[in-house]
Amino acid sequence: MSTPSRFKKDKEIVAEYESQVKEIRAQLVEQQKCLEQQTEMRVQLLQDLQDFFRKKAEIETEYSRNLEKLAERFMAKTRSTKDHQQYKKDQNLLSPVNCWYLLLNQVRRESKDHATLSDIYLNNVIMRFMQISEDSTRMFKKSKEIAFQLHEDLMKVLNELYTVMKTYHMYHAESISAESKLKEAEKQEEKQIGRSGDPVFHIRLEERHQRRSSVKKIEKMKEKRQAKYSENKLKSIKARNEYLLTLEATNASVFKYYIHDLSDLIDCCDLGYHASLNRALRTYLSAEYNLETSRHEGLDIIENAVDNLEPRSDKQRFMEMYPAAFCPPMKFEFQSHMGDEVCQVSAQQPVQAELMLRYQQLQSRLATLKIENEEVKKTTEATLQTIQDMVTIEDYDVSECFQHSRSTESVKSTVSETYLSKPSIAKRRANQQETEQFYFMKLREYLEGSNLITKLQAKHDLLQRTLGEGHRAEYMTTRPPNVPPKPQKHRKSRPRSQYNAKLFNGDLETFVKDSGQIIPLIVESCIRFINLYGLQHQGIFRVSGSQVEVNDIKNSFERGENPLADDQSNHDINSVAGVLKLYFRGLENPLFPKERFNDLISCITFRSTATRT
Amino acid sequence: MSTPSRFKKDKEIVAEYESQVKEIRAQLVEQQKCLEQQTEMRVQLLQDLQDFFRKKAEIETEYSRNLEKLAERFMAKTRSTKDHQQYKKDQNLLSPVNCWYLLLNQVRRESKDHATLSDIYLNNVIMRFMQISEDSTRMFKKSKEIAFQLHEDLMKVLNELYTVMKTYHMYHAESISAESKLKEAEKQEEKQIGRSGDPVFHIRLEERHQRRSSVKKIEKMKEKRQAKYSENKLKSIKARNEYLLTLEATNASVFKYYIHDLSDLIDCCDLGYHASLNRALRTYLSAEYNLETSRHEGLDIIENAVDNLEPRSDKQRFMEMYPAAFCPPMKFEFQSHMGDEVCQVSAQQPVQAELMLRYQQLQSRLATLKIENEEVKKTTEATLQTIQDMVTIEDYDVSECFQHSRSTESVKSTVSETYLSKPSIAKRRANQQETEQFYFMKLREYLEGSNLITKLQAKHDLLQRTLGEGHRAEYMTTRPPNVPPKPQKHRKSRPRSQYNAKLFNGDLETFVKDSGQIIPLIVESCIRFINLYGLQHQGIFRVSGSQVEVNDIKNSFERGENPLADDQSNHDINSVAGVLKLYFRGLENPLFPKERFNDLISCITFRSTATRT
Repeated sequence: MSTPSRFKKDKEIVAEYESQVKEIRAQLVEQQKCLEQQTEMRVQLLQDLQDFFRKKAEIETEYSRNLEKLAERFMAKTRSTKDHQQYKKDQNLLSPVNCWYLLLNQVRRESKDHATLSDIYLNNVIMRFMQISEDSTRMFKKSKEIAFQLHEDLMKVLNELYTVMKTYHMYHAESISAESKLKEAEKQEEKQIGRSGDPVFHIRLEERHQRRSSVKKIEKMKEKRQAKYSENKLKSIKARNEYLLTLEATNASVFKYYIHDLSDLIDCCDLGYHASLNRALRTYLSAEYNLETSRHEGLDIIENAVDNLEPRSDKQRFMEMYPAAFCPPMKFEFQSHMGDEVCQVSAQQPVQAELMLRYQQLQSRLATLKIENEEVKKTTEATLQTIQDMVTIEDYDVSECFQHSRSTESVKSTVSETYLSKPSIAKRRANQQETEQFYFMKLREYLEGSNLITKLQAKHDLLQRTLGEGHRAEYMTTRPPNVPPKPQKHRKSRPRSQYNAKLFNGDLETFVKDSGQIIPLIVESCIRFINLYGLQHQGIFRVSGSQVEVNDIKNSFERGENPLADDQSNHDINSVAGVLKLYFRGLENPLFPKERFNDLISCITFRSTATRT
Repeated sequence: MSTPSRFKKDKEIVAEYESQVKEIRAQLVEQQKCLEQQTEMRVQLLQDLQDFFRKKAEIETEYSRNLEKLAERFMAKTRSTKDHQQYKKDQNLLSPVNCWYLLLNQVRRESKDHATLSDIYLNNVIMRFMQISEDSTRMFKKSKEIAFQLHEDLMKVLNELYTVMKTYHMYHAESISAESKLKEAEKQEEKQIGRSGDPVFHIRLEERHQRRSSVKKIEKMKEKRQAKYSENKLKSIKARNEYLLTLEATNASVFKYYIHDLSDLIDCCDLGYHASLNRALRTYLSAEYNLETSRHEGLDIIENAVDNLEPRSDKQRFMEMYPAAFCPPMKFEFQSHMGDEVCQVSAQQPVQAELMLRYQQLQSRLATLKIENEEVKKTTEATLQTIQDMVTIEDYDVSECFQHSRSTESVKSTVSETYLSKPSIAKRRANQQETEQFYFMKLREYLEGSNLITKLQAKHDLLQRTLGEGHRAEYMTTRPPNVPPKPQKHRKSRPRSQYNAKLFNGDLETFVKDSGQIIPLIVESCIRFINLYGLQHQGIFRVSGSQVEVNDIKNSFERGENPLADDQSNHDINSVAGVLKLYFRGLENPLFPKERFNDLISCITFRSTATRT
């Protein structure tokens, strides 16, 4: 047994216990406060999100309205123009105008999409946040109810522990007092026995009797105290056991509360919060991603139109828009004077020699001119290529303007550093204009030369034909070797029409008689070509071909050639069909005679084939 | 020779020619007009494009500014909050708050990008259109100059044709008159010869002489006229030849102009137009595509954050934020009363039977309770799962709102038809709240039951340990077969600490002496675990682990178990490190004695290792 000073007094133990319980109570209150605070923060966050999306919806609506106004403004402007009428009619418009319309369409699409975005914010996303906020508050209340119950349970357990501890203390104290009383009795008995064991014979009988009853009394008392002690001892043991068991149960309960129940309580508060927030934000993301996809589709359409920015087809379309201005005029025909029956160059004796000389002069002059002009042409073409390179430089990538620095806090605009640093642009443009200047100078020089060559070549070829094959052979051998064999493809003249009867705008019967062709070459050739390449072609005979090409082919046929002879389809099928249509349309007497036309037309209106005769 | 009525008169021919030339002249003027009109339309289109992009730049700037304001408003609001401080400090914040910050960042990013877009419109795209407009005008002027030259050339050729035609007419007329005069002379000669051939003898000599001189005269005249005719005939032939040659040249020139030069002229007007327009529009497209990419990147970051919306880690973080509230309290210790040396349940003879009975009662009571509570638990879990399914329903796809109908003219909003048709939502929410109600009812029931079980189980286990191993074996066999072997993992008690000396917050020396472990199990076990799994882990000993897990492991060690014994790393390495830190931190006497602490610290400050002793 140690010194009594090491024992804690009952009061101390109780105070210690109470402070420990007080601490737990304080923690429980604190926990509720934390959960409440968390819920408040959530509600605040959800309120912020609602405000944010409400405001953003406003911004998107305004943006959408502005874009709509912008598109409408220009749409209204163009709706009345000729091009737009055209556009409405057949969508077949000049490529830059097409780009312009698609740009406006894209703005309308963006306007529509941002309006949808705003709509989704207001009618879907914000409503979700509202509901999550409601849910959070409700969940917190529910969890508070559960917490209240758990806290009560815990307090009950702690109270129980207090009670059993007190009981233990009481019984133990009683046990100790019973023990000390028992010890006192034992001590008295010992003293009695020691006294009687002294000189027993010295004691008087009376005294001895007195002593005996005293011993008996002490013994009885000792027995009584022994019983009392045993009883108390047992009670104390039981109380201690109860205390220990309750202690164990209390610790387990506290442990369970802190480790498991508290976690469950937080889970109750959280129930559905993250999942619902997830869905709300995913709705926002879905809207944004869809907006992006739509925008991207629109941009792709524009990119496609930009890819199709094409000068050649635009030129074609431009010329077709004004056929009166661009249709080649009738040929100048030989006008015989006062019944002059000769309509060809005559190379009879008196003029033959002179013509021969002139022919030879022309020949050598042409050779020189062609060499010179070929040089000019090369320079012109090289200069044109330089200009083409200048205007097709790929200087349109603006990615670096959109580089976000890692820290989103400070992104500085880099636009000013790109493309248009003014000095470089000015220099480039000056350079380009200088090159243009040179190009046009050379082009004029070339056109002048080629005009002269055309005239001389025409005369030269006519003389050649007039002077006959023998001279041509001679010409072939005497041609200067440094003249390129095919100097200018389109300047190479062909034999004049072999037919006296007109092919286009003439009479078919006369032509057939005159040419000896049962079917005119033009009809045969065009139909053969269309048979080969055109039967799968959409819009054949409906879509008009190239005016230039139609004229080219027509002229070629008029010269008696067959431009569709080679089996390469380097002609546009629509142009070939156009030539055939032009030919039939031009006939002096139509293929279906006028007097039969109405009969034929009315024939088609008969429903049954049987009635058609 | 045919009838004179078939001949065209000179005047007719000239008139015809002149009308043909007039027509060509008119066409040339018309062509210039068309080109001018085309250029005007281009300039107008480019002006429209400039106006369009200027206005769009304004809209983008306004949009950007509004977004910036929006972001700034909420940023300012959050900058002062506690969470934001935290955010600035370690980026380790609650997942919904993280999403919120990323949303604001995204708005700032969009603001920045739209400002850049506006900048590119103004400083790049519009400038390009301006330059193209300038270029188009310049090109048209250049091509006009060339057209002027070509037209002059053509007119020269036509004039020449007129001249040679007139010459031919003149010489042919002269040739005809010479011929008729010759014929007249021949007729007179014939008459003269006929008269002299009549009765020659009848004629007087005088007369004969007279006649002879007359015949001579006629012959002379005929000769003269013959010469004149031949001369005129040659002149006529030459003139006709010249006419025919010039005709050929003229037709060739006209053909060349219409088929080739006209095309070249249009090409001159077009020079660079399509290519430059292409580049300007591509700049626009590049800007738009880059905006889109940047936006997409931002959205992906948000999506990633939304994926990481996670209640568990947030709960963890929440509890760490308030350690005072959520740290489990000290265990209630047995408080021995007045030097009571027994501190365990005593199962000596007088109470043993009673304890035994109580133990058995507890045992059967627990078995019943566990079965009952397990049922409640199952119901609770199933209800929770139903709620989880409700709150994770994938109802956030809004694609259909962005479906553009084919005709861009009429796109109608379809938002109203999606997600939030009010009745369905209300029904869904009512259903969800009903389920919640039921869940919470069951949860309370379950918690009540498990609390009771915890208490009884703790008592039961303590009794079991007290009554010894034999009884435990008996318990093992008498356990009811329908109790699942692991009903509640965390409710399974372990033997109480084998050590009397405190492990945590105790004295190391005492513990070592008391437990006989030279190195405490906790140190050995934690270090072994960290050795196995933690050496590659970033932030080990820096990043705090899970408070719950740390407590769990700590409690397990205190109970004398080794929670890290099995070789599966199902513990968070940071928590294990946390336990080790907690252990060392809690030691009554630190590992490095306080009186040596400053010496050790100053030791580290020595630069060279040699001075460290």
